[in-house]
Amino acid sequence: MTTIGILTSGGDCPGLNAVIRGAVLKGSEVHGQEFVGFLDGWRGLVEGDAMPLDRSRVRGLSHEGGTILGTSRIGPFQGPQGGAENIARTLERLGVDAVVAIGGEGTAAAAQRLFDEGIRIVGVPKTIDNDLDQTDYTFGFDTAVEIATEAIDRLRTTGNSHKRCMVLEVMGRNAGWIALHSGTAGGAHAILIPEHPESIEQICEWTNSVRERGRAPMVVVAEGFTLPDMAQAHSTKGMDGFDRPRLGGIAELLAPMIQERTGIETRATVLGHIQRGGVPTAFDRVLATRLGMAVTDLVADEQWGHMVALHGTEIVRVGFDEALVDHKSVPAQRYQEMRVIFG
Amino acid sequence: MTTIGILTSGGDCPGLNAVIRGAVLKGSEVHGQEFVGFLDGWRGLVEGDAMPLDRSRVRGLSHEGGTILGTSRIGPFQGPQGGAENIARTLERLGVDAVVAIGGEGTAAAAQRLFDEGIRIVGVPKTIDNDLDQTDYTFGFDTAVEIATEAIDRLRTTGNSHKRCMVLEVMGRNAGWIALHSGTAGGAHAILIPEHPESIEQICEWTNSVRERGRAPMVVVAEGFTLPDMAQAHSTKGMDGFDRPRLGGIAELLAPMIQERTGIETRATVLGHIQRGGVPTAFDRVLATRLGMAVTDLVADEQWGHMVALHGTEIVRVGFDEALVDHKSVPAQRYQEMRVIFG
Amino acid sequence: MTTIGILTSGGDCPGLNAVIRGAVLKGSEVHGQEFVGFLDGWRGLVEGDAMPLDRSRVRGLSHEGGTILGTSRIGPFQGPQGGAENIARTLERLGVDAVVAIGGEGTAAAAQRLFDEGIRIVGVPKTIDNDLDQTDYTFGFDTAVEIATEAIDRLRTTGNSHKRCMVLEVMGRNAGWIALHSGTAGGAHAILIPEHPESIEQICEWTNSVRERGRAPMVVVAEGFTLPDMAQAHSTKGMDGFDRPRLGGIAELLAPMIQERTGIETRATVLGHIQRGGVPTAFDRVLATRLGMAVTDLVADEQWGHMVALHGTEIVRVGFDEALVDHKSVPAQRYQEMRVIFG
Amino acid sequence: MTTIGILTSGGDCPGLNAVIRGAVLKGSEVHGQEFVGFLDGWRGLVEGDAMPLDRSRVRGLSHEGGTILGTSRIGPFQGPQGGAENIARTLERLGVDAVVAIGGEGTAAAAQRLFDEGIRIVGVPKTIDNDLDQTDYTFGFDTAVEIATEAIDRLRTTGNSHKRCMVLEVMGRNAGWIALHSGTAGGAHAILIPEHPESIEQICEWTNSVRERGRAPMVVVAEGFTLPDMAQAHSTKGMDGFDRPRLGGIAELLAPMIQERTGIETRATVLGHIQRGGVPTAFDRVLATRLGMAVTDLVADEQWGHMVALHGTEIVRVGFDEALVDHKSVPAQRYQEMRVIFG
Repeated sequence: MTTIGILTSGGDCPGLNAVIRGAVLKGSEVHGQEFVGFLDGWRGLVEGDAMPLDRSRVRGLSHEGGTILGTSRIGPFQGPQGGAENIARTLERLGVDAVVAIGGEGTAAAAQRLFDEGIRIVGVPKTIDNDLDQTDYTFGFDTAVEIATEAIDRLRTTGNSHKRCMVLEVMGRNAGWIALHSGTAGGAHAILIPEHPESIEQICEWTNSVRERGRAPMVVVAEGFTLPDMAQAHSTKGMDGFDRPRLGGIAELLAPMIQERTGIETRATVLGHIQRGGVPTAFDRVLATRLGMAVTDLVADEQWGHMVALHGTEIVRVGFDEALVDHKSVPAQRYQEMRVIFG
Repeated sequence: MTTIGILTSGGDCPGLNAVIRGAVLKGSEVHGQEFVGFLDGWRGLVEGDAMPLDRSRVRGLSHEGGTILGTSRIGPFQGPQGGAENIARTLERLGVDAVVAIGGEGTAAAAQRLFDEGIRIVGVPKTIDNDLDQTDYTFGFDTAVEIATEAIDRLRTTGNSHKRCMVLEVMGRNAGWIALHSGTAGGAHAILIPEHPESIEQICEWTNSVRERGRAPMVVVAEGFTLPDMAQAHSTKGMDGFDRPRLGGIAELLAPMIQERTGIETRATVLGHIQRGGVPTAFDRVLATRLGMAVTDLVADEQWGHMVALHGTEIVRVGFDEALVDHKSVPAQRYQEMRVIFG
Repeated sequence: MTTIGILTSGGDCPGLNAVIRGAVLKGSEVHGQEFVGFLDGWRGLVEGDAMPLDRSRVRGLSHEGGTILGTSRIGPFQGPQGGAENIARTLERLGVDAVVAIGGEGTAAAAQRLFDEGIRIVGVPKTIDNDLDQTDYTFGFDTAVEIATEAIDRLRTTGNSHKRCMVLEVMGRNAGWIALHSGTAGGAHAILIPEHPESIEQICEWTNSVRERGRAPMVVVAEGFTLPDMAQAHSTKGMDGFDRPRLGGIAELLAPMIQERTGIETRATVLGHIQRGGVPTAFDRVLATRLGMAVTDLVADEQWGHMVALHGTEIVRVGFDEALVDHKSVPAQRYQEMRVIFG
Repeated sequence: MTTIGILTSGGDCPGLNAVIRGAVLKGSEVHGQEFVGFLDGWRGLVEGDAMPLDRSRVRGLSHEGGTILGTSRIGPFQGPQGGAENIARTLERLGVDAVVAIGGEGTAAAAQRLFDEGIRIVGVPKTIDNDLDQTDYTFGFDTAVEIATEAIDRLRTTGNSHKRCMVLEVMGRNAGWIALHSGTAGGAHAILIPEHPESIEQICEWTNSVRERGRAPMVVVAEGFTLPDMAQAHSTKGMDGFDRPRLGGIAELLAPMIQERTGIETRATVLGHIQRGGVPTAFDRVLATRLGMAVTDLVADEQWGHMVALHGTEIVRVGFDEALVDHKSVPAQRYQEMRVIFG
């Protein structure tokens, strides 16, 4: 009988609970595994703070956002109880044979290091930004895109009524996937992503061209987008003459710049934390459930140091090391094919 | 044959198109009225800029957000073409016999003045904030509350996963109706509205008490809420030592104050323009349709200077002058009955 | 210290849990009341089957559909343990001082009889059909209307693509409120309700007129609607030559009749149980919360034999006897004002 | 300058308008193509009934369900004007150089035959059932799954309140994809699909086991599912003693069988046409937009006889002939991995 300890680490994602449910239901039924949940990510593992996870605890969880285990941004090598050696002792003390770590790039890197130092650990990839390499999609991403798209649908009508330009800021610090997909779905007139700089002049050209045909421009911008000369941009914002670091997000920077240059009344909206909470889409629940079920096979096969991933319609296995080679940025071709219809 | 000119003025609201549709479909069928639409609120009336509004133009509009007529914040007394005398001439020139003005308090005040100066005008009340007296509800309000409630539902799960306090800012400059209703629906642990000041100490007491029982505090704040000593609050925010006017909204002011005083990680979300766009709720579509239909009876009865309103389940008639006496604030009793379960 | 036993009876409604939560949170805080929940409606009361209901049990319930107490259609006078005398003994044995019965007309009638026989009982009105007199709206109704309206929005696009007539059957055995409101919100071309018979010829006239202008007719019908000569209608359906009772709903009866008479391909959809489940709208959560809170005042004031109700924007108190005098049907005027724009 | 005629054929799908929009915006901008739309599928092509499709006509369409071109189930070889020779003449007369056919398996087969007979035709795969081989997903499927999942979420709460077994019938005549994905997402206790027969005894075993742990069983069944001995099943339903063909769907057949065998009150809901209408999910809008854009490249490259398809995250090209070799059924492995957690 194998006992598995599950933890969820980093920013939360719609679908985490569905992963946990899928793992517990299948693992207990098919592999005879038992489960505990470490609380608040790596903290629970490091401190040996765990809750029992039986079938009755996880039933009905597939549609619930967040994570019943809690999460944090603490790493497994922090503090006096951290490090592989301590963790190995903690696991033994708790009778936990293997660890399933659900998390993003940082989690995968930490898991790889723990694996290198002898911990029996496998993973489930998680990033709402969809920027993990070696998996087609990560759960949570589809929900975030859906929420952002609904916001665009709403902003479009109010924009048109007032003939305003609406700028919507969505998540995506390093990769513009949420902006690309929600902007495509919502019919945005410009999509701005970290991977592909655009000048303020180009952005204003797009908004002007929308305005000229009598419509209200809709701009979707990923939080990580920067203008080519950001220093200049920043100082533009200083309303009291002082140059100082920007306080708000990129949307709050862009809106007054667009308004000033085009004369189109422009409003910024920052979607923020709404994108990562609440009921997951069916797509994310299915993906998360399948990943959760598949990770129990990884444990049964003792394929430590690997995580499950989506390739096409199949769940596959990928080594942590492979997953950590590259970020998954929006490829130039994907951006360019949308860019030709901007404006 | 009476020709009616419709205009939509002020901030847009989900339901405006349903009013227009209801008026045109009933007015043409029952009263033999004809319709034109003035573009961009009073501007279209003042400049004589109108579009034809026949049955085929308005069909299928009940579920569309925004207003097909456009809106603006311009008043009817502005500019060289403004004023009752000019407007009377413009109406005569266009063959328009009566005006239906859909708008808020400012619109009602302007309409009252035009009525006093002889313009045949009636009204449909509109304010997303629900702060118009003499009507139980205004359309758009229910949609805004629903959107804010969905946001709370989403924020709750991410708040609980991270054990963060979430502060959500919703609309409501002078009245806290959206905050009160969405906070009630979403099970917020504190609701802060312009009508009822609360100290930062009280707010922190509520959030602490939530935290003590292991949950993540959810605070809903109307944009018009102020702390008793707002000057002190403002200076708290200055990160560079300069005292200066607050740039962000109240949520962005409160969040760091709560975090600093309670030690609970706190995040602000400003819902903004999303609240006023997109598909109206069924409630708002029904209310808007009924108001639009009823206003054609006002015209048929030549009851100028009146607007339609909701009392209980009935559509009634109210003079502009009555409607303008008071704001509809959240009564102390309504706030207190919720306040006892805060925390 | 008063101990209150709550029960939910009859068909479930979105908002039941919000009533329970509102009552427990306010009652315990303001009036020092304690609460238990009787399971499965009157059954739990009759059999003395109850669960504790403290503050922690009800927190977070406002957005959850269904009822944590369960429900059934059993009455309090059924079985050997039923009847006022037995119930009085059961309440005494359990230490329960007062009963809050949340239910519809049957529940109110039973509660009235128990009150007459000395039971300290008060009520909260509940009917998804909105057909209870003495209250403007009942919770659950708004959610049902919203769900039906979303269905109409979806059916409209597929109807138009295929140029089909779509017939949607919604709840409403005796009263057509859900059909009237969702049909109004969804822009239906005909709304058929129990209170106002229409002939199949009239219905076909409406659908034909929609078809003539190139659109797809949308018909919303309450389950309780009947054609003037229903016997004839029924025999029409028998595909094997036998006259026999209709098996399906009214939509499945109407669709082939419309298709046969107009030549328009026609499809029926029966919304069914989806209308009464799931997350309540914000409107219903607010109404349910307010009713739940107010019913604790009824108990504190020992105003037995009364229920809380909505008049305009106020929660008021109504005797069970008053509430039972009449059904709340759709008034002829409300139907006629919509009927003029059918087709 | 190439002129392209687009048609949408077969049952409608959320996303059709996004395909049309994507094709027209990109084709006109990048390839200098012009577009017309044939009305009502192949009928418009056969009869030469087309509408102009310029950029302004398709803007803002990405979020609209249905198809602005209309659809029908007529084939291109029907009637006196049908057949490749006539169609070639019609295309020449209209100045249309190439055809883009958006449709399912029947459309692909017809397009293949037209291609064999010299028509310059390419395709975009469309089936809400997701049963087309050679593409990972078809647009419309994700929306259908989302709608079905929302229905399950709603039915679950009412089922639990009443302790009823709920049976939901979803689309899927030959393939159970919608049932599998929505059932997985919704946490169904049994999923019944055409590819994998289950006996009524097995189904009742699952529902009983759910009931035994105090929950309400949720069964999701694809319309094409059949019981091993369907004849027996049918006769079970005859309430008047006559053996006759089943009138209702599979859910209406199963519900009384489950109720009779288990004693659990059981209710059937047939989701029907709601699944194929209305606003597409963001996923479907993105997929449809990408397919629409990519099909204009097929035309520019004169790669007649091919369609665009999704492989992983890439849009690829597939010959009609390859796409027609196989149906895409739910693989046994995908079903079995879910089946182990039924009950």
